[in-house]
Amino acid sequence: MGAAFILDLRLAVDSAPISTLPLCDVRLMNDARFPWLIMVPQRLGMADLIDLDPADRAVLIEEIAVVSRALKAVTECHKLNVATLGNAVRQLHVHVIARFADDVAWPQPVWSVGHTVSYRPEQRNRMVEAIRAALPS
Amino acid sequence: MGAAFILDLRLAVDSAPISTLPLCDVRLMNDARFPWLIMVPQRLGMADLIDLDPADRAVLIEEIAVVSRALKAVTECHKLNVATLGNAVRQLHVHVIARFADDVAWPQPVWSVGHTVSYRPEQRNRMVEAIRAALPS
Repeated sequence: MGAAFILDLRLAVDSAPISTLPLCDVRLMNDARFPWLIMVPQRLGMADLIDLDPADRAVLIEEIAVVSRALKAVTECHKLNVATLGNAVRQLHVHVIARFADDVAWPQPVWSVGHTVSYRPEQRNRMVEAIRAALPS
Repeated sequence: MGAAFILDLRLAVDSAPISTLPLCDVRLMNDARFPWLIMVPQRLGMADLIDLDPADRAVLIEEIAVVSRALKAVTECHKLNVATLGNAVRQLHVHVIARFADDVAWPQPVWSVGHTVSYRPEQRNRMVEAIRAALPS
């Protein structure tokens, strides 16, 4: 038996759980300025896409598509931004962000623009529920 | 017969050709601050990953892995950043960027940090040749 997967503490603090897909934990980033999900492959010691084996990468890209479609359906966004950066938190995670031509960062990426605005709890719960309902069960 | 794929003019101006894989045109962004590749799937009218069909997505994620490995081998980078944003240029393209803990943007993403520094032609040609040599032929 391998060691159990443990979510990075900073990712855990900055986000709320939505769903667990076969490969990825899907979570809502706590920033009400942007509908912003993160996906964390439940694999130990991964930092970059090339650390995953090809079978996991094939699952990941289709889970990204599933999550992207759910986010687009809920938000009716203008554009999706999908990225794996990992400069601050090294544990492999994928950002899936709904963008609008009138959001506060457009057309820049969302990172390093202004300051995080936390959701009110009921607002966050509504978003979590909406995304969960839009994901395949 | 469908219409031929045409590379977005801004992507063409901002980057130099390296190689063409089965799906993607691989190009070097003309910014000497960061070893920065872009990959453009040769498909018409695509903006987001979810616009590709699943077979193309499966090819794309493995081409991203191949290009990432080549970039890492050439640069010995600390981290890879992989992203598809498309807020400024809507044509689907994937950024693959080699990051170092001492680069000018670290730990921020490279976008919207400072100003582009063009390669000297011979410096650009060396990078193009090095990446090309590191890609599977």
